[in-house]
Amino acid sequence: MILVGFLQAQNCTNFVGSWRHPLASQDFTAPAYYRRIGRALEAGKFHLGFFDDRLAMPDLYGGDHAHTVANGIRCVKMDPITVLTVMGMATERLGLGATCSTTYYEPFHVARVFATLDLMTDGRAAWNIVTSMNDGEALNMGHAAHDDHDRRYDRADEFMQVVLGHWDSWEDGAIVADRATGLFAHPEKVHRLDHQGDFFRSRGPFTVPRSAQGHPVLIQAGQSGRGQRFAARWAELVFVAYHGLSQAQRDYASFKAQVAAAGRDPDRTFVCAGVYPVVAETRAEAEDHAALIDSLPREIDSLSLLSEVMNFDFSKQPIDEPFTQEQLDSWTGVQGMRDRIRRELGGRLPTPRDFIAITRRGTFHDHPRFIGSPKDVADGLEEWFTTRACDGFVVAASHVPGAYEDFSRLVVPELQRRGLFHLDYTGATLRENLGLDRPAVGAWR
Amino acid sequence: MILVGFLQAQNCTNFVGSWRHPLASQDFTAPAYYRRIGRALEAGKFHLGFFDDRLAMPDLYGGDHAHTVANGIRCVKMDPITVLTVMGMATERLGLGATCSTTYYEPFHVARVFATLDLMTDGRAAWNIVTSMNDGEALNMGHAAHDDHDRRYDRADEFMQVVLGHWDSWEDGAIVADRATGLFAHPEKVHRLDHQGDFFRSRGPFTVPRSAQGHPVLIQAGQSGRGQRFAARWAELVFVAYHGLSQAQRDYASFKAQVAAAGRDPDRTFVCAGVYPVVAETRAEAEDHAALIDSLPREIDSLSLLSEVMNFDFSKQPIDEPFTQEQLDSWTGVQGMRDRIRRELGGRLPTPRDFIAITRRGTFHDHPRFIGSPKDVADGLEEWFTTRACDGFVVAASHVPGAYEDFSRLVVPELQRRGLFHLDYTGATLRENLGLDRPAVGAWR
Repeated sequence: MILVGFLQAQNCTNFVGSWRHPLASQDFTAPAYYRRIGRALEAGKFHLGFFDDRLAMPDLYGGDHAHTVANGIRCVKMDPITVLTVMGMATERLGLGATCSTTYYEPFHVARVFATLDLMTDGRAAWNIVTSMNDGEALNMGHAAHDDHDRRYDRADEFMQVVLGHWDSWEDGAIVADRATGLFAHPEKVHRLDHQGDFFRSRGPFTVPRSAQGHPVLIQAGQSGRGQRFAARWAELVFVAYHGLSQAQRDYASFKAQVAAAGRDPDRTFVCAGVYPVVAETRAEAEDHAALIDSLPREIDSLSLLSEVMNFDFSKQPIDEPFTQEQLDSWTGVQGMRDRIRRELGGRLPTPRDFIAITRRGTFHDHPRFIGSPKDVADGLEEWFTTRACDGFVVAASHVPGAYEDFSRLVVPELQRRGLFHLDYTGATLRENLGLDRPAVGAWR
Repeated sequence: MILVGFLQAQNCTNFVGSWRHPLASQDFTAPAYYRRIGRALEAGKFHLGFFDDRLAMPDLYGGDHAHTVANGIRCVKMDPITVLTVMGMATERLGLGATCSTTYYEPFHVARVFATLDLMTDGRAAWNIVTSMNDGEALNMGHAAHDDHDRRYDRADEFMQVVLGHWDSWEDGAIVADRATGLFAHPEKVHRLDHQGDFFRSRGPFTVPRSAQGHPVLIQAGQSGRGQRFAARWAELVFVAYHGLSQAQRDYASFKAQVAAAGRDPDRTFVCAGVYPVVAETRAEAEDHAALIDSLPREIDSLSLLSEVMNFDFSKQPIDEPFTQEQLDSWTGVQGMRDRIRRELGGRLPTPRDFIAITRRGTFHDHPRFIGSPKDVADGLEEWFTTRACDGFVVAASHVPGAYEDFSRLVVPELQRRGLFHLDYTGATLRENLGLDRPAVGAWR
């Protein structure tokens, strides 16, 4: 079983209400905050912590950021790679993932930053590949509007070829650094990419040698059909938002079949489901804590986040008025979520209130919940894992660092007793700890 | 007197031959290498270490990278901000500067990365603003060719307005994070930039609050007329390549006059001259060491680096054939260096050999040298400092970490005894240690 911490370089966890939690640390702009989280995850032998990202604060709802700032709705967003590096320097075995957009960066830059991070952390880096979400990001990064959904993925496919091509530039053993002869590296072992495609040109040669684990682990979280095809082609770790056990089992099996159809090994592409655990010594204590957590969200949290994820201003639509087919079809945001709502409603067109009720976006209910004693939570995770609903979990936190401290102290030992989770890190690199082979140069082609 | 360490996230210092030095550490892709350098600088109370950068390896000479790789001519180039963050986590007071290009990045990204670094290092960050140098970088980063020199600076001027504008978005004291009322931050204290200019559009609101020092310190190193105008307008620390005391005194006075003419305080814009010190217990030992250092460079180092800095393939020109006026005028690389060579030769047109002889690029002679006992080196630095040739020094290293360990152990105590250099860090932030005021929001406008 793989465990991942779902982190944010911002003022809250991915659960907006977390900053209102009485036990939440509030020093989210200080390095100590991220060091504590990293150490809590490493104490629990989590395989990795990964930072989500967006290149804008929410302000689609009402076309204004005042509500975002007043309510603390993800209004702080720091650079995740810098924060991740801080966490890496406070840990020794924890894998370190960060999100970076294929829509707003050059592939040479992304290849170089993650290759550098992989060297500086002795082979613990991972890149969460996203195509970004909405117009706020476009407007900050100099674009007029966010690209069409499928076009973003076409671009991302080519982006991957450039990044992986650059990462293959230096063969293993290229560097000799022989002072006696003055030979620094074998010139025939360092290659120029010379990429010229539809979206990108990048010549090379790349300037960073390969790391202990070859190159960073690739993470993806696409939920739409096109997103899943992308993940099946490229990802080694896939983060999913499943909403119930039987749906999860179906979608997991279907995704693994897509990986095989793409000519890759489904047993070397791990699916981790986002979950909200609330654990305490006893079930009663955990339920009290869950009730406290459920008192933290505000409706504005949901409306604001739905606007962002759908790239549409929900303040423009009366809360009980159904969207038109044309509206829904024209949205350029996360299509997996929209499509799920249409499926759940059958033929009926959804209203904003349907979106809130079904997605429960902005509350501590938008991922499956596992609440109770260590045994209760472990039972739930074990069921999902052993009935092939997933290969592991992306553990989201009601507050930090407390939720990870509780999980590491209470749930992890129970999972270890049951033989579901490793007793310690078995390798030095993230790939070793995940059971992924070190990729040979060119293996992805 | 300000002291700065001139660092590279690569296989050598800015002196290519450094990797061939018998005492050079060779673990340049490991975090320990950068931690050792950072600690050596902090032991010597250096104000900051700063990482130079380029987005390509040298391969203009002969249109091929084989010579670069074989000879170790800066062929490794890691992301400097990631490496700098590693150094920051191993130090407590050392200022931390990194180079980032205004030509190949979006200002929102640069603003966010450096603001994040400034928070994660408790106010020790600095940004060295460059417009980049040559076609290799353009070709890696998706551009057809490098922009014209003056146009790059026009673009950089607007880039600064966007970055500084974003850095001013969150007023001090905006965040209250009051769980009782649920007010996270005062919405009227968080502003949207809404920049629409000739080169950039970036809307905001920016997502990173201000740091302990307000915002990162601004560094610039432009040598051309246009570059100096840019530095006079924006820079707080200016790195210069002066070649002799009297020229330095003239150029220093002239630059300070430009700062005053730009309406800024010349006493709050510090000029640091690049220098090569070689120090040992005795002058004889230091001279022996300098002789060893002078045995390390190869002619190919000079030809390769000159090609890069001039953005012209020197292999195309017979070594004793003068360049034409048209060739020289058409070059888009570092114009300050070209113009200096023309000045030194009077009316005569330079040959490649003139470039090598005058610039001594690639050798340990392309900055002023201070070689000898601690007293000798301190005498030299004192003369430059007290006769107003500069406000401090950018100390380049013959090898690392040894050259900084020697300097910190031998020269720094001598400078301190003379009252020229601080006995310890007097503040927590880089601005405090440099004697720069914390900028008020909007002060730069």
